[in-house]
Amino acid sequence: MVQYVGVGNLISLVRAVGVETFLSELAGFIENDFRRWPEFDKTPRVASHSAEGVIELMPTADAALYGFKYVNGHPGNTRQGLQTVTAFGVLSDVASGYPLLLSEMTLLTALRTAATSALAARYLARPDSRVMAMIGLGAQSEFQATAFRVLLGITHVRVYDVDPAAAEKFCQNMAESGLEILVARSSQEAVLGADVITTVTADKLKATILSDNMIGAGVHINAVGGDCPGKTELQADILRRGRVFVEYPEQTRIEGEIQQMPEDFPVTELWQVITGEAEGRRSGQEITIFDSVGFATEDFSALRYLRDKVQGTGFYTEIDLVAEPEDPRNLFGLLQQN
Amino acid sequence: MVQYVGVGNLISLVRAVGVETFLSELAGFIENDFRRWPEFDKTPRVASHSAEGVIELMPTADAALYGFKYVNGHPGNTRQGLQTVTAFGVLSDVASGYPLLLSEMTLLTALRTAATSALAARYLARPDSRVMAMIGLGAQSEFQATAFRVLLGITHVRVYDVDPAAAEKFCQNMAESGLEILVARSSQEAVLGADVITTVTADKLKATILSDNMIGAGVHINAVGGDCPGKTELQADILRRGRVFVEYPEQTRIEGEIQQMPEDFPVTELWQVITGEAEGRRSGQEITIFDSVGFATEDFSALRYLRDKVQGTGFYTEIDLVAEPEDPRNLFGLLQQN
Repeated sequence: MVQYVGVGNLISLVRAVGVETFLSELAGFIENDFRRWPEFDKTPRVASHSAEGVIELMPTADAALYGFKYVNGHPGNTRQGLQTVTAFGVLSDVASGYPLLLSEMTLLTALRTAATSALAARYLARPDSRVMAMIGLGAQSEFQATAFRVLLGITHVRVYDVDPAAAEKFCQNMAESGLEILVARSSQEAVLGADVITTVTADKLKATILSDNMIGAGVHINAVGGDCPGKTELQADILRRGRVFVEYPEQTRIEGEIQQMPEDFPVTELWQVITGEAEGRRSGQEITIFDSVGFATEDFSALRYLRDKVQGTGFYTEIDLVAEPEDPRNLFGLLQQN
Repeated sequence: MVQYVGVGNLISLVRAVGVETFLSELAGFIENDFRRWPEFDKTPRVASHSAEGVIELMPTADAALYGFKYVNGHPGNTRQGLQTVTAFGVLSDVASGYPLLLSEMTLLTALRTAATSALAARYLARPDSRVMAMIGLGAQSEFQATAFRVLLGITHVRVYDVDPAAAEKFCQNMAESGLEILVARSSQEAVLGADVITTVTADKLKATILSDNMIGAGVHINAVGGDCPGKTELQADILRRGRVFVEYPEQTRIEGEIQQMPEDFPVTELWQVITGEAEGRRSGQEITIFDSVGFATEDFSALRYLRDKVQGTGFYTEIDLVAEPEDPRNLFGLLQQN
């Protein structure tokens, strides 16, 4: 039998653990897996594009476990009352190839994306960062705000979305968060005085959410929304002015902000900053940019964390995803009436 | 909610439909999808290899539906009482990216592989073929025998496996099949007088299950077992003597029997034989070889068939694989206590 964590059980688990603790522990798993980066079997995700969006498979493995995530990105979905991004994933045993755990990953992706952003910011933002601007208040926004509060110590968020209803939703969800919230009337206003700027918009096109003149010295930019070919948020000048950090260059050059730049545009890999092999922020004046697109190891970490977390709890069920004939070579026997 | 067809329900469905009808209808879906081959988004499967085996993801899509299969291949598994191959798959809506159906595919892969083999043989074997030799009597063997009986009119099977217990299992499962079975003492004996030779062994290595001197004129070879890098069953001389038919050359050149041959070794694509764009068998003397490795469109056809088949029946359940917040942008709201 395969363990199954559906949406209902994941919600119950996160509520039981507490979203802040969950994000914090999850970030620990992600950090540990970045630390042992060379151990992973890595490949750019496999994308199937259509006019409406993209469906992707993101596999990775270490010597013991294999994981993959199915994820879609359909910016027009919200118009039909559907989510832009949904996901699910599986963790398997490398030695037998058998799946161990199937989980919903719509919520889990939102959690791991926020945890990864905040983790990166711990290495790249100024340690005294307290104010975060956030452009784009969709499904991912509260996860980002919460993760930055817990992991980086952000106390103030300055938020902006083209749709005022999104800001209202954000404020309502964050009312008890302990964060001071300012709803700005423009991106320009939102970024004023921010130590960290998070861009997390959803349009599938080259947008200029941030232009160079909006970015002051010492800022850390957490660029989350530019994550597929043709979808960017930052003016190229910003990328030239700051230092760019990425998860997996082979994938980010296709999907990230740096798809705007030449093939040999210099980037630093986050895992090397985490292990100390590469420098993170060098001064209080430097502009740092985390050009995040989301990588398979982060989902692997999330599935690994989830699997550890649900053992011995009631937060999973078992499903008959794998046939188990008594004699493994007698699969056909299962179909015969007794 | 996503429809879920587990092992239990798939078994019940196949029993209700009848395995022969199921294979026959499934072959129809596979044939129809081969016929519209250019409509599919195709890519070689994404493999993660380990010392023990391989885990693969096999995606494909047409304009309306996206499908993928997870499948492993671990030849040593049977020693632990586990199956060599297990699988599951998902069918999704291209327009929204939402998954529609999750299904076990261990049984379904065995069914679609057999249906594809027999379908190919209808175009490639001599129409008067009645005798099939089968080397390798593992989990796939009865599916192959049944499909060839139903779809090609095979009446006699001559079988061989290095393990006599496998032959015993085969005979027991096929006792009521209407097939005349001869258990041979060697591969050489099994192939005597055969119109069709099916090789479906499981070892992950270059083997010589068939050598050139065993193959007479007019034979159709259904080479199923050679399906990953380093795993072949036929002596290269056979490939040079006959004409080789493949599913998707880009994948077969990596995984099939023709991995032994130069990059430009001539092959004919099965879909073109089915549409009439390429010639199948040219004479009663020709040796034809279906170098089958299994392609994503076949799984897509199987998932599509299954989805059609279970609607309005009790042979599926619904699982909460996708979060459904009332406001799609309010994912975070799901985590908050009410």
